[in-house]
Amino acid sequence: MDIPATAPVAPSALTDLLDGRWAHVRRDARVRMSELPAPPVDLPTEEHRAQVLDSLRALVASGYPRAGFPKEYGGEADTGAALTAFEMLGFGDLSVMVKAGVQWGLFGGAVEALGTETHHERYLRAIMDLDLPGCFAMTETGHGSDVQHLRTTATYDPATGEFVVHTPHEGARKEYIGNAARDGRMAVVFAQLLTGGESRGVHALLVPIRTETGEPARGVRIEDCGRKAGLNGVDNGRLWFDNVRVPRDALLNRYGDVAPDGTYSSPIDGDSKRFFTMLGTLIRGRISVAGAAGSATKTALKIAVRYAQVRRQFENPETGDEVVLLDYLAHQRKLLPALATTYGLHFAQEELVTTLHDRRTDADDRAQRELESRAAGIKAIATWHATKTVQTCREACGGAGYLAENRLPGIKADTDVFTTFEGDNTVLLQLVAKGLLTGYQQHLHALGSAGMARFITDQVLGTVLERTAARGLIDRLINAVTTQDEETDLLERGWHLKLFEDREKHVLDTLARRLRRAGEEGADSFAIFNRAQDHVLRAARVHIDRVVLEAFVAAIDRCTGPAVTQLLDRLCDLHVLSNIEADLDWFLGHGRLTTARAKAVTSAVNELCAHLRPHAGTLVEAFAIPDSMVGAPIALGAERDRQDAQRSHGARELPRMEDSEEAVTP
Amino acid sequence: MDIPATAPVAPSALTDLLDGRWAHVRRDARVRMSELPAPPVDLPTEEHRAQVLDSLRALVASGYPRAGFPKEYGGEADTGAALTAFEMLGFGDLSVMVKAGVQWGLFGGAVEALGTETHHERYLRAIMDLDLPGCFAMTETGHGSDVQHLRTTATYDPATGEFVVHTPHEGARKEYIGNAARDGRMAVVFAQLLTGGESRGVHALLVPIRTETGEPARGVRIEDCGRKAGLNGVDNGRLWFDNVRVPRDALLNRYGDVAPDGTYSSPIDGDSKRFFTMLGTLIRGRISVAGAAGSATKTALKIAVRYAQVRRQFENPETGDEVVLLDYLAHQRKLLPALATTYGLHFAQEELVTTLHDRRTDADDRAQRELESRAAGIKAIATWHATKTVQTCREACGGAGYLAENRLPGIKADTDVFTTFEGDNTVLLQLVAKGLLTGYQQHLHALGSAGMARFITDQVLGTVLERTAARGLIDRLINAVTTQDEETDLLERGWHLKLFEDREKHVLDTLARRLRRAGEEGADSFAIFNRAQDHVLRAARVHIDRVVLEAFVAAIDRCTGPAVTQLLDRLCDLHVLSNIEADLDWFLGHGRLTTARAKAVTSAVNELCAHLRPHAGTLVEAFAIPDSMVGAPIALGAERDRQDAQRSHGARELPRMEDSEEAVTP
Repeated sequence: MDIPATAPVAPSALTDLLDGRWAHVRRDARVRMSELPAPPVDLPTEEHRAQVLDSLRALVASGYPRAGFPKEYGGEADTGAALTAFEMLGFGDLSVMVKAGVQWGLFGGAVEALGTETHHERYLRAIMDLDLPGCFAMTETGHGSDVQHLRTTATYDPATGEFVVHTPHEGARKEYIGNAARDGRMAVVFAQLLTGGESRGVHALLVPIRTETGEPARGVRIEDCGRKAGLNGVDNGRLWFDNVRVPRDALLNRYGDVAPDGTYSSPIDGDSKRFFTMLGTLIRGRISVAGAAGSATKTALKIAVRYAQVRRQFENPETGDEVVLLDYLAHQRKLLPALATTYGLHFAQEELVTTLHDRRTDADDRAQRELESRAAGIKAIATWHATKTVQTCREACGGAGYLAENRLPGIKADTDVFTTFEGDNTVLLQLVAKGLLTGYQQHLHALGSAGMARFITDQVLGTVLERTAARGLIDRLINAVTTQDEETDLLERGWHLKLFEDREKHVLDTLARRLRRAGEEGADSFAIFNRAQDHVLRAARVHIDRVVLEAFVAAIDRCTGPAVTQLLDRLCDLHVLSNIEADLDWFLGHGRLTTARAKAVTSAVNELCAHLRPHAGTLVEAFAIPDSMVGAPIALGAERDRQDAQRSHGARELPRMEDSEEAVTP
Repeated sequence: MDIPATAPVAPSALTDLLDGRWAHVRRDARVRMSELPAPPVDLPTEEHRAQVLDSLRALVASGYPRAGFPKEYGGEADTGAALTAFEMLGFGDLSVMVKAGVQWGLFGGAVEALGTETHHERYLRAIMDLDLPGCFAMTETGHGSDVQHLRTTATYDPATGEFVVHTPHEGARKEYIGNAARDGRMAVVFAQLLTGGESRGVHALLVPIRTETGEPARGVRIEDCGRKAGLNGVDNGRLWFDNVRVPRDALLNRYGDVAPDGTYSSPIDGDSKRFFTMLGTLIRGRISVAGAAGSATKTALKIAVRYAQVRRQFENPETGDEVVLLDYLAHQRKLLPALATTYGLHFAQEELVTTLHDRRTDADDRAQRELESRAAGIKAIATWHATKTVQTCREACGGAGYLAENRLPGIKADTDVFTTFEGDNTVLLQLVAKGLLTGYQQHLHALGSAGMARFITDQVLGTVLERTAARGLIDRLINAVTTQDEETDLLERGWHLKLFEDREKHVLDTLARRLRRAGEEGADSFAIFNRAQDHVLRAARVHIDRVVLEAFVAAIDRCTGPAVTQLLDRLCDLHVLSNIEADLDWFLGHGRLTTARAKAVTSAVNELCAHLRPHAGTLVEAFAIPDSMVGAPIALGAERDRQDAQRSHGARELPRMEDSEEAVTP
């Protein structure tokens, strides 16, 4: 393969592209966050919680929470800025990011999106200012993914004009609720609304959980979830409600209301549609998690790449010098494809944020569902990418990567839950797959085996391929390919795009056919769906793979400088070809690649790793993470200093070994 | 595919097989370890260290450390029992396992294996009794994998009859040394031995590091490595030596000695050969880590499978019942193939322990090298399997899996370093690959690019396939296959064995040819090796895959009951076919499977998952991990109780939803 030489570029040129539309938010955050305490290395749980609360107060002082709230209450109504700020918090102590997300994203977001003017007037300023710390009490011990079946009840009592909030049994206790164990004063409680003896589905109510003096409110029991793998600066807790009475206007009544006499009314017909409309307003949580996962991944990569650039082990017998880790192909393969994909996900994330920000208030259901589906898919793929990459970075730094001072243990532990909170990734991908089958606007949210099963029996299945924002560009690139697959240059972008599109279409078509056929044969709908579950998950994955690639391509198209363009083109090549390599069994098994071309893909990944190796430093510096926030001594020259000292003094002190073979320590 | 029905078996029948030759050690350990404190959920570092030291004292009282030491000093000289005991410690607090490993395996093992009678007489009893807590000070900040190039020096001074131990620069400080930060009194220090102005390579010396009162000894500086990702009950530290003088007999002189006048002598010619002989005596460390990784994996699987058997989420619309997680194909695919491979690795581990235990003292170099290579390979594969499986189990338990009380966070954090200590896995696999190329007895240990590069230029390359212990059985099974590949039943064991053997041979042959060709073309030896590094790693992996499969097959052959045999046969099928599925790109790309057969493999994995699902409980109970050691509430019925309460009371309390679709919480 003939790869044209790639000229060096300044990291700052890349940073400009990465910073994108909300560059001012990112620049501010870099300054502001450097003033917060560094992620702790070894702090007792209570001290960590106190420190995180202080950090939230510092954020309030800097005006941080205002971005996402309406202007009438002192906010800035800038969704993109709010989401970008959350993403930036991902570079610091992730407990701060999560606690801020609970307070302003989930709690504040629910009051804003599900409440009406009364609630806004009464609470939004206090929420922004952290005078009213609150919780988002949705998940129960027995129902996490299947939240439509929550068991907590809110029964309207017309005699007193109150709702009675109650935990009917142990499985209905609220679980893992952030801000509950220590700081929360109020909670948005999701519960089955009962009025006039009828259930109206899940609604949200504001319930005080602590008094002014910090004691649990009457009828409320609070338990601390205790130590977790990570995020120990967040006070997660459990909540039980023993017939707790709240006034009628505690109901966040934008989508459903109860009159004094108990009459229920709603602008949306159907419990299910209403519930999913309510959930849909909370899409920002998933986007924020995906963004923070990206930031954590970048920090980990910066640490591992910097270390790999200075850490030496084993001599090169040709030169007598010890070899820098990043010169080993095996080490390049650990870090560089992950770095390439991190860029791709960054651009996909920005596209998602932009789409949400620019969404018209009169957007149709279909556009809304598509956005929700994309947010779910990118959240799943970005958080799994984080889990895998942070793990790889830890291993790539050996023993040094295991020391808390070098940050990777904390990043790993903190991000680990990202794959299962704000929607379990496996469940989310099923949501995505379902959205890809036609007719999806009606049943988008019906998830799990049940929803899918009903869906496949109800619908005429077919598939559509939704294009991302860069529609025109993608078509142009695909149409530019005139050669046969086998003859096309492996670095031809149009071929990449075509290959990804073709894979997605094939996987979806065969899935639709398979489900339809099984349905026609009269099989049990649960069994049909369940047997195809691996196929369903694959469909979602390859869809998101295409979305990410198209975002990457669109970002390169925005580059103005030829040098930056060229570097990103090679990075995108590595992203694409390592993705293809990871899925070679599919491409071979479906006749998309010959065995000769499959081997060429593997060789090309190796060549691209070698080609990009001199640019690895630039690519991680471009994230512009301040050194004070990276923290890790191994990333900040400590290792280089030691190695320099060793090479200039130590090595010469010893007589040369006659036999300089290398070994492994037990 | 037609899978014959598998009858239920009692877990105890499987336990008998799993417990194997050292069943008495395992039974004892289950009782003894239940008396130790449980792995802590949230203990400050210093308290955890104190607790772990107490646990070591309790082990002393129970006679635990005696198994591995010579009878003359009160030991039992039972290597297999000692290794099995370490494996069992893997079910408890892994800090105890690692600290015990440092004290009795590494420190005590080095004194025994590298020292002579003087040292044995003087120290072994005190080491066994923990009266002399010690360290194994090999790794340095600058040299971890490449320990032959350590920079610490031990210079003999004939004027005083002493060695002067010295840390010449910062990169030569001893790093991550267990027992150093708090408890160690003495260290086996690995250093370049200098006498008469000549270097004699790396040797080990006993150096006191603390006084009776616990102060650092004169000239010794000690620093605490501080908090780590896990294993915080182990006090890892750094050591610097400033011209520390120790008497001549501090040298562990079995393989190299210095006379009073400074004359050096050794029974082994050549610094390199001597050093690797010394390292070879320490093989038990790697085997112990692999064993403990297996135990931790089993605990994680037991927790995740028990939870998946009772945890319900989403309704089955056909029945109206909420579905148990383990009934979902996606969930089965997360846990069951991992469980199958855990069995395979268990049997491979036992074979390894048995081989080491039964090794004749006059075993030739070749047998010794082969054993070391196998230990290295199984350590790498078993620890990566642990890292991946524990991660999967954590995710499979969702938020509950993130709570420290449910053990998975601790297991994950503690085992994480297993992939990079006692030999970095990537480096170890290179050692294995090299051992597989002929002529390997001469250069086995020459590792990294340098060793490999010299090796490939020096040697005529070829490949040999070493058979595991079950040679006759394997041949018989392979020869029993008379059909063509395409027509052979997918569950035919002989076909599996042939396929694995053929893959290994092909990967090795092509690797050998590739290296030879590049060498003939005169390429830079470092570059040759480096460009083939992914191929090298693959060769090692597929070799170990075969070793594990053959051990699995041999274990099934030892079964006496037909029901146990049948169950293990299906489990082995799942292990094999999911391994093939993970490597489908290779089998397709090399014409070993047609696309139709590749698809059949995927279907078969799905079918085997469904088939084995009713046996999942049995398969994890068979590990016979006492509940008191599992600890996790979600594995001990707490979740079942909650779900029972919910189904019998809660669900009926609510009016049924008209629309029972399911959702996902943000």
